[in-house]
Amino acid sequence: MLPFRTLISIDKSAEASIYLQLAEQLRRLIGDGILKTGQKLPGTRQLAELLQLHRKTIIAAYDELLAEGWLESRAGSGTFVADPLPLVRPQTLGKEIDGQRTHREPGFPFESKPHLVRPLLLMGEGLRLDDGFPDIRLAPMEELARAYRSYFRWGNPQQHFGYGDPKGNRLLREELSVFLNETRALRTTADNILISRGSMMGIHLASTLLLKPGQTAVVGETNWSGANMNFQQAGAELLTVPVDQHGLDVEALAELCQRRPVRLVYVTPHHHYPTTVTLPPDRRLRLLQLSQQHGFVILEDDYDYEFHYLRRPVLPLASADPNGMVIYIGSLSKSVAPAFRIGYVVASETVIDELARLRRIIDRQGDAMLEFAIGQLFRNGDMRRHLKKAHQTYLSRCNYFCSLLTSALAGSLQFVKPDGGLAVWAKFDPQIELAQLAQKAKVEGLTFSDGLAHNPPGKALNSTRLGFASSTETELEQSVAILRKLVKG
Amino acid sequence: MLPFRTLISIDKSAEASIYLQLAEQLRRLIGDGILKTGQKLPGTRQLAELLQLHRKTIIAAYDELLAEGWLESRAGSGTFVADPLPLVRPQTLGKEIDGQRTHREPGFPFESKPHLVRPLLLMGEGLRLDDGFPDIRLAPMEELARAYRSYFRWGNPQQHFGYGDPKGNRLLREELSVFLNETRALRTTADNILISRGSMMGIHLASTLLLKPGQTAVVGETNWSGANMNFQQAGAELLTVPVDQHGLDVEALAELCQRRPVRLVYVTPHHHYPTTVTLPPDRRLRLLQLSQQHGFVILEDDYDYEFHYLRRPVLPLASADPNGMVIYIGSLSKSVAPAFRIGYVVASETVIDELARLRRIIDRQGDAMLEFAIGQLFRNGDMRRHLKKAHQTYLSRCNYFCSLLTSALAGSLQFVKPDGGLAVWAKFDPQIELAQLAQKAKVEGLTFSDGLAHNPPGKALNSTRLGFASSTETELEQSVAILRKLVKG
Repeated sequence: MLPFRTLISIDKSAEASIYLQLAEQLRRLIGDGILKTGQKLPGTRQLAELLQLHRKTIIAAYDELLAEGWLESRAGSGTFVADPLPLVRPQTLGKEIDGQRTHREPGFPFESKPHLVRPLLLMGEGLRLDDGFPDIRLAPMEELARAYRSYFRWGNPQQHFGYGDPKGNRLLREELSVFLNETRALRTTADNILISRGSMMGIHLASTLLLKPGQTAVVGETNWSGANMNFQQAGAELLTVPVDQHGLDVEALAELCQRRPVRLVYVTPHHHYPTTVTLPPDRRLRLLQLSQQHGFVILEDDYDYEFHYLRRPVLPLASADPNGMVIYIGSLSKSVAPAFRIGYVVASETVIDELARLRRIIDRQGDAMLEFAIGQLFRNGDMRRHLKKAHQTYLSRCNYFCSLLTSALAGSLQFVKPDGGLAVWAKFDPQIELAQLAQKAKVEGLTFSDGLAHNPPGKALNSTRLGFASSTETELEQSVAILRKLVKG
Repeated sequence: MLPFRTLISIDKSAEASIYLQLAEQLRRLIGDGILKTGQKLPGTRQLAELLQLHRKTIIAAYDELLAEGWLESRAGSGTFVADPLPLVRPQTLGKEIDGQRTHREPGFPFESKPHLVRPLLLMGEGLRLDDGFPDIRLAPMEELARAYRSYFRWGNPQQHFGYGDPKGNRLLREELSVFLNETRALRTTADNILISRGSMMGIHLASTLLLKPGQTAVVGETNWSGANMNFQQAGAELLTVPVDQHGLDVEALAELCQRRPVRLVYVTPHHHYPTTVTLPPDRRLRLLQLSQQHGFVILEDDYDYEFHYLRRPVLPLASADPNGMVIYIGSLSKSVAPAFRIGYVVASETVIDELARLRRIIDRQGDAMLEFAIGQLFRNGDMRRHLKKAHQTYLSRCNYFCSLLTSALAGSLQFVKPDGGLAVWAKFDPQIELAQLAQKAKVEGLTFSDGLAHNPPGKALNSTRLGFASSTETELEQSVAILRKLVKG
């Protein structure tokens, strides 16, 4: 028998009843594996004697543990440590389904939304000319890992692993405010900023707040489907205006506003998705003026502002918006790595407050650890150093990739060298069927999108985005060589 | 002058034009800080001679870099490294707002939803009897930190820091499937599971999918506001049925279903929020039968299943649902730490597929790193060990806290010792004004909720949840001592 007299010590002066103390200590002995599953406990009389306690106290403790499922009583042979432990011994309902897996179809009807159906292009191993993703090999992983380590070890865990502010980590919001004011001439404080999960969540929250069924949202043709889907999901009617080599055709928008009320205009001024062109200052000012005149909200998605190569970036519309008509959205996912879902929304305080209330019923709050880590990287300068390095690398890859396309694929595709961003918008020769080409390339070890998702209804652009940023120059050479082989034969 | 002949090397056989090679190498010299801001470059004739290149090549490279903003030309004195670098030198719109911060109010109207307004009780330093949060000091932080480290160092970063499956990390979904089948007698595969950001996102996604404006959602009175807010946000009419000492009154629900169509019934069977009672097997079966009969969906939020103390847990409704009427929701946030927003939804495959499409336009995907880390903890047994330890600790804290409440506060509050969960539902004596008590306690260093949020319209329950799990026994003693002092004087 175990040395219970040594293992168990009862404090008779303690506030907790003696039988509860005993039950607790027996529970610990079971939990620590000292009393093992199936092991027999001493009889109540025997244990009472050993511990110099009343037998009634022992019985009360055993009863407690029997009720809780730690012990089990076998008729005529005594009390045993129950097997298995309570965690894995549930009461059944008597009607469990046996031997078959959950059905594929539910027992109730539900409406599947066609506007949400969109293929998911996952990048596998091998070469890739993606949608315009960053090179994760450049990401400041060491610095992030260090910041994560310090978060795990730092301060009062009850506080920083508990529930936090739905608007996001304060340090990051303050650092971001400084960064945005400095690089984009915004005039924010931390109270104007909500940290979202990527720019997608910013668009989702703004759509939910702003759009009611039947209202009009205007986007460029063609536009990013992630934004379109959100506007449609909110019930808005989606209208388009043309996009030319300078981006959104603001005069077409002006005409549209004459004909019907517009609630929201979505714009990716720097650089238009998918065609990569930059909206110039005069169009930006005109857009702001139209917004004033017609009362529509501008949802400015400046996901690519960090990456501009030719001349200088153009300041956001939000920097010249004295009346608060712009909701400004940005992302750090492209600056670090897509897996780090960090974006931000900049708006008037009351708008941020309401967006935070909406976000609270979606995911309660952001990723406390990641937000803290990125906040640290901004504070100690690592983020600025990383952005500068990434900028230079992508610029040189952009130049190199464009020169490769020109020399190796002239005649098979047309493109305008982008002012910035992480991808080239390439229009393939009508002789080349892009869907087929993408399939053949996949077999050769190169993944890229067939661009079908960019086609407006009834039009075939035969164009796609070829992202250069995530590939080294050698990988770009290999990718272009595969394309050349398939196209030129 | 710098030794340009050593620093720059041109490969005349390379595919890329010589001027682009030169531009690229100059960019790198600037980026690496070898060519410094404000530094003068050699004249084109001089550099051409040094590098044995055409002067036209040098001019083309300089022009490229001038256009990109890396260099600047000063009339009559030459070409210099531009200051500052392109990243921080944007083109202005000529109308930037100066000297004032972003406005508090936007320039457009928006509707603030009253149902979303709910106070945020953030736990500060000091003692706490919270809503029923886990003790973060027990969380497997070392194990998690180790799993994080391995994620940072492991395999192909392009893949695991890139975009992933909106349904969540495959490893975690597979491990969770095994865990759920084992502990809850479900019959899932990984395809029946979507990893969400806490149970909140599961409820949000299900509400969005299932509820149309005007449809009826039924909840217990009183119920968790996080769920109520989601049903209201989806436009549903919220009806209540009473909750007694066995949970949802299913016969009242049966009557309600006679009178009007019901689309969704929300239930927290294990244990009802906020009153902590357990829905017994007979009511569960009746609820399933009603769901069959009337065609409503059961949204089963089993957030507390892991923590049951008295006898044994009751299997979920989802374990006895042959026709797929149940959407089952669970959370790992309470098993690890609230900051780790991890929950899951279990349903038929087609439902999971549609929920994943909805989730894709909200936050694109979950936290790849965290999902991987938790998946690892399941695989190597750390999670089961942690859950067992947490279970035992909370059980003993529950016992201790209830005995303290009984001995120190008898007459001032009533409660039924909960079968499980992390909090006690306490009804205070009508003489005691709970709001005032909570304020006074705050001054004494103890935070707890005044319970006002649990009051149904027009009723004052004078009740609140006192969470015991996040406090040690000593902290529980100190907390109860403060309550005793304030109540008994």
